[in-house]
Amino acid sequence: MEKHIVLLPGDGIGPEVTKAAKNVLQSVADRFQHTFTFETHDIGGVAIDNHETPLPEDTVEAARKADAIFLGAVGGPKWDQLPGHMRPEKGLLGIRKQLGLFANLRPVKAFPQLLHASPLKQEVVAASDLLIVRELTGGLYFGEPRERRNNGNAVVDTLAYERREIERIVEQAFQSAQVRRKHLTSVDKANVLESSRMWREVVEEKKAQYPDVKVEHMLVDAAAMKLVTHPAYFDVIVTENMFGDILSDEASVLTGSLGMLPSASLNETGVGLYEPVHGSAPDIAGENKANPLASILSVAMMLKHSFGMEEEAEQVEAAVQEVLNEGYHTADIDLVGGTVVSGSELARRVVDQI
Amino acid sequence: MEKHIVLLPGDGIGPEVTKAAKNVLQSVADRFQHTFTFETHDIGGVAIDNHETPLPEDTVEAARKADAIFLGAVGGPKWDQLPGHMRPEKGLLGIRKQLGLFANLRPVKAFPQLLHASPLKQEVVAASDLLIVRELTGGLYFGEPRERRNNGNAVVDTLAYERREIERIVEQAFQSAQVRRKHLTSVDKANVLESSRMWREVVEEKKAQYPDVKVEHMLVDAAAMKLVTHPAYFDVIVTENMFGDILSDEASVLTGSLGMLPSASLNETGVGLYEPVHGSAPDIAGENKANPLASILSVAMMLKHSFGMEEEAEQVEAAVQEVLNEGYHTADIDLVGGTVVSGSELARRVVDQI
Ligand SMILES: CC(C)[C@H](C(=O)O)[C@@H](O)C(=O)O
Ligand SMILES: CC(C)[C@H](C(=O)O)[C@@H](O)C(=O)O
Repeated sequence: MEKHIVLLPGDGIGPEVTKAAKNVLQSVADRFQHTFTFETHDIGGVAIDNHETPLPEDTVEAARKADAIFLGAVGGPKWDQLPGHMRPEKGLLGIRKQLGLFANLRPVKAFPQLLHASPLKQEVVAASDLLIVRELTGGLYFGEPRERRNNGNAVVDTLAYERREIERIVEQAFQSAQVRRKHLTSVDKANVLESSRMWREVVEEKKAQYPDVKVEHMLVDAAAMKLVTHPAYFDVIVTENMFGDILSDEASVLTGSLGMLPSASLNETGVGLYEPVHGSAPDIAGENKANPLASILSVAMMLKHSFGMEEEAEQVEAAVQEVLNEGYHTADIDLVGGTVVSGSELARRVVDQI
Repeated sequence: MEKHIVLLPGDGIGPEVTKAAKNVLQSVADRFQHTFTFETHDIGGVAIDNHETPLPEDTVEAARKADAIFLGAVGGPKWDQLPGHMRPEKGLLGIRKQLGLFANLRPVKAFPQLLHASPLKQEVVAASDLLIVRELTGGLYFGEPRERRNNGNAVVDTLAYERREIERIVEQAFQSAQVRRKHLTSVDKANVLESSRMWREVVEEKKAQYPDVKVEHMLVDAAAMKLVTHPAYFDVIVTENMFGDILSDEASVLTGSLGMLPSASLNETGVGLYEPVHGSAPDIAGENKANPLASILSVAMMLKHSFGMEEEAEQVEAAVQEVLNEGYHTADIDLVGGTVVSGSELARRVVDQI
């Protein structure tokens, strides 16, 4: 197959991990006789520096034509004092919205080798393997109006949804649950929010179409508790943008392997943006220390979700597991009896396994 | 001193724990020669049953005249299918709003005896002692409009604040920090929300008045992570209503003693509503199993925050600690080598210590 991939390295360690992702994609192409073409564009802080905007028009144009997009990371102290519309994060929010990337998939899975680094007790976290499906282009992070009022003495943000926006993310979550353990937890605050009551109605309407999935509703405050006390309880969680932001970051630290977590953001046509969950880590940028595994696992998600290449995706995941089994890791991770190597060396070892 | 206290037992285990709270208040009055008078009213599910509304007018009237209010718990499966305005939680939201109880204080402190019940590793949670100051009468849980639109095909909720509402909660938090470890973390989502940007401005404006307090800003997603990985990092956290709901419930399970956590909700005149953090636990209601210690510790907060009775408050806290030291506890708690007693027996032992 031929696939065209847009790379958005961004800031901090973004370029390093993007290079690792590209090398892995290239090795998959070689091994499985695909043709992957690449094109690189600016986003975030580097785009502000080069083009005076966090999301240049030609970045959006290129992304629209791509079969998939890989993003490294955006942001850093250099751009922290700029006004709102000139912040690196605006690039990320902008590309999500412009490409309609409404479904953010964030799997969190315990790697047995890394569990000892978890803040949770081994027996609490051990069997954890969950997927958070976060609505990504609506809700509190995009609703209008969002403005100062009354001469700056009041302020308003808006949590808004069209019914159709809730339907498509709920459908996505049911489908994700069908290919996993068939247990869907819809998280809301239906005892307070009108939007949550509509969310609950939509879930109730849709569930007849997925009779094999066991679905339940949970209040967001209860979910925030249960993620810590019983993370292994969850299979798939589906929720509003801001609830998903908070819960997915809470979930990301449970297994002790934040540097290992991938993510995918999909639109209705299956085009997706793939990025590691970790940030731009400006403190170690350029030192070849950054852990490339979250990016490499994001590539596996790309192969599976945007290209339908199940076998290739499994190969990449198996290669990561194999390298961990051999004890190789970057300095961010504490692997008992393992060998610390540079980011590029670790990526090379994954490539060698493919 | 003479103080008049309104008791709102509510639903489930609410009446049992309210009785324990009242007995402790009575023993404090006897020991320290105060006169506490009591008056009991309905709220929540029991109010729906008796008066067809979760918040009867005479409950509000009585609460307005009280020096302090104690609330047991509201809610239960019996009322779960009622329409929004007839849900037990509406009673709680209503009394908060009508009495202007804008400052919700939720301390979370590790009891050494109970730490082994924490989902976190001992060394992660050990030194934790934090206070969440949640804005309680504004933000996303109260803003207007909150309604269906476009023939039910769209929905909107609103996160709204007057500048003055942010100022008073931020002032409260600075003052709380001053009598603690002088470290204030203001939590927001200023990279996305306009209301968060105003929140940050207010914190920056106020900090000159509290030069002894070290203040910092943290994004809500980062805070959700750090609460799990480094709970002992925090002293006082101040945040918006909904962020505070999620983070305080997340924090409440960290120390393994949810059945021990008190809360206070204060208004501008110092009148407060005090309630245990745990819910109505309908499954064990009426069995004399409910842990009264969260309610008794809420009484200690009442003595301190609404009555200015520091010594009396410390006496109550010391009595709770002493009973735990002697190994007495209810069945919800797992205290190695301890003795399980009924809720009323445990409360009696606390009273005996006072
Ligand atoms: C950078 C920020 C706007 C973004 C978000 O909250 O959506 C990030 O936290 C994320 O979760 O991808
Ligand atoms: C019952 C509900 C409305 C309430 C809230 O979210 O405020 C509760 O969860 C709380 O935290 O006191």
